[in-house]
Amino acid sequence: MDNTFNENPHRRFNILTGEWVLVSPHRTKRPWQGKVEKTVSPLKDTYDENCYLCPTNTRMGGKKNPDYKKAYSFINDFAALMPEVPEGELQHNLLQAKSEKGVCKVVCFSPDHSLTLPVMEEKDIVEVISLWQREYLELGKLPFINHVQIFENKGDTMGCSNPHPHGQIWAQESIPQETLKKTKNQANYWKGFKKSILLEYIEQELKAKERIVVENKDFLALVPFWAIWPYETMIIPKRHIQNIALLNEDEKVSFAAIIKELTIKYDNLFNTSFPYSAGIHQAPTDGEDHPEWHFHMSFYPPLLRSATVKKFMVGYEMFADPQRDITAEQAAKSLRELSTIHYSKL
Amino acid sequence: MDNTFNENPHRRFNILTGEWVLVSPHRTKRPWQGKVEKTVSPLKDTYDENCYLCPTNTRMGGKKNPDYKKAYSFINDFAALMPEVPEGELQHNLLQAKSEKGVCKVVCFSPDHSLTLPVMEEKDIVEVISLWQREYLELGKLPFINHVQIFENKGDTMGCSNPHPHGQIWAQESIPQETLKKTKNQANYWKGFKKSILLEYIEQELKAKERIVVENKDFLALVPFWAIWPYETMIIPKRHIQNIALLNEDEKVSFAAIIKELTIKYDNLFNTSFPYSAGIHQAPTDGEDHPEWHFHMSFYPPLLRSATVKKFMVGYEMFADPQRDITAEQAAKSLRELSTIHYSKL
Ligand SMILES: O=P(O)(O)O[C@H]1O[C@H](CO)[C@@H](O)[C@H](O)[C@H]1O
Ligand SMILES: O=P(O)(O)O[C@H]1O[C@H](CO)[C@@H](O)[C@H](O)[C@H]1O
Repeated sequence: MDNTFNENPHRRFNILTGEWVLVSPHRTKRPWQGKVEKTVSPLKDTYDENCYLCPTNTRMGGKKNPDYKKAYSFINDFAALMPEVPEGELQHNLLQAKSEKGVCKVVCFSPDHSLTLPVMEEKDIVEVISLWQREYLELGKLPFINHVQIFENKGDTMGCSNPHPHGQIWAQESIPQETLKKTKNQANYWKGFKKSILLEYIEQELKAKERIVVENKDFLALVPFWAIWPYETMIIPKRHIQNIALLNEDEKVSFAAIIKELTIKYDNLFNTSFPYSAGIHQAPTDGEDHPEWHFHMSFYPPLLRSATVKKFMVGYEMFADPQRDITAEQAAKSLRELSTIHYSKL
Repeated sequence: MDNTFNENPHRRFNILTGEWVLVSPHRTKRPWQGKVEKTVSPLKDTYDENCYLCPTNTRMGGKKNPDYKKAYSFINDFAALMPEVPEGELQHNLLQAKSEKGVCKVVCFSPDHSLTLPVMEEKDIVEVISLWQREYLELGKLPFINHVQIFENKGDTMGCSNPHPHGQIWAQESIPQETLKKTKNQANYWKGFKKSILLEYIEQELKAKERIVVENKDFLALVPFWAIWPYETMIIPKRHIQNIALLNEDEKVSFAAIIKELTIKYDNLFNTSFPYSAGIHQAPTDGEDHPEWHFHMSFYPPLLRSATVKKFMVGYEMFADPQRDITAEQAAKSLRELSTIHYSKL
């Protein structure tokens, strides 16, 4: 990157959402007297009798978990979306509302209460990916489902209410805004160039190198040029595919490997079980062809300076634009230089 | 509201941003085992010798505060934006960046370290409003400033790094996204109907009544139909004016009164110094006429169930759409029924 941008306030453009981020690289020297988070040590117990996600335990809704041995999913007992909802629509002058159908699921990554993605075995992460594939296809096939959002909230800083490693899936009737924005911008590029915009983007990044964190034969993990969160990253397949169901067996192993390496680096950054929200963006399941879509997985981690000081997306960010202090290139360099052996094993 | 929407998942449309929110009213029964915030007691000391915002103290940058007696502003010592920045623009295939000029200021609401807005005297809040007016005009007049964002981050949950009651102003070259969205939607309505969309909206709300929290002769405070945060509110002037500088002396007193009443209700909701980010959205200072703009002040408070349990805008919300549990009507009812005498004075 040009030095002007390395050291001075500037804005950067996100090619997927069409939005801008304000970058203030000179501001990292700011002292911090604000909120300090707790440090999070890795869990030790492989089973917790009070955990409603551990195998054989009874959940809050009264249902009992089977003695599952690998990645396992079930319908959320407190689902935000439900398949059966009385249909309704309000169009009263300026007030517009519409009933919404959907399905919310919980995905336990492993029967072992202590195993987060970075400390799971690669083959068990492959099981998680296979489950994501099945859920995307099965939920996506339901007549009232047009979008399947797979995500993970990790750590209590990210609103996670149970430390047993798990993710969620919210599938629904409408296509959410974030996906609509990305559909529009990918489609514009596709129309103009008959090429995936992300394919073009990773070709550029492979030349520039400065934002790449990890790479393997099928995937790239990088800090996107337009990253908002201090250590935000994206995992992008090198092959232009619309959704995770199109990954073959071999690519699933590569995907598992890069998820593991990236999340190990995250934990190693501040020697903590690194909090984040991660999500997979892929083609909607609305029955349309989506040749423009290039699936990717994004990680939005809140930590900024240490295991206890995070970035707050508050006043200015809520009312104006997202803002960050360190540059994408600085963040990528820090992550790139970290070991791929988990700190707990050193 | 129709019962279908009171009890079942639905989406609502925001007429200002053009975006949707997912509402899951049935989900309030969800148990919570996640993160618990600290309770915040009101501050007692009127002066703190270690506070870099108290009068006569020396700030971190080395500058000394005057012995100010009412609302006081100064240039942020760790400003995210600066007036002198080498100009630069990057347009390299998919990478787009642009240098950004601006000014960041801190606004101390009162010399008294312990006085948040709800416990300040009305006449002293009028001083804050007068200062906001002057800053909007003066900063807005600078040739490189096209937008002035006034906001407050209150409470350490909202990333506030100093408890001395204060807000901020970030003025800049570009018009931020949130303001652009609102400009576009207000302009569309203005073109079609030659009326402020917010004027039409508050006329409807005054009839429906169910989302109104406080009202006085010049202002309305309500939970907008499309609120995202559990107890989100908006203060809207009944007269169609583009910016706060157009408030006359009488209206400033009404504005101060409604800010005070609303923030007292907030503190009374959970008997805590209620955290939020508040911001004033108004016409950009780009030299254009903005007849479409109707200024308003929004409050985004994170608390959901108690002084210690907040709503997290994480996974689904980051990757898909914002989501809320209680409805806008339920939130408005709770706030409306609260006393306008601060709990610390009862
Ligand atoms: O400037 P402050 O109060 O130190 O910082 C706070 O507000 C800023 C503007 O919303 C945010 O960018 C920071 O993340 C937050 O901690
Ligand atoms: O469903 P959970 O894990 O209890 O809840 C968490 O994730 C949801 C989806 O991102 C959010 O709506 C909640 O605010 C958050 O606490």
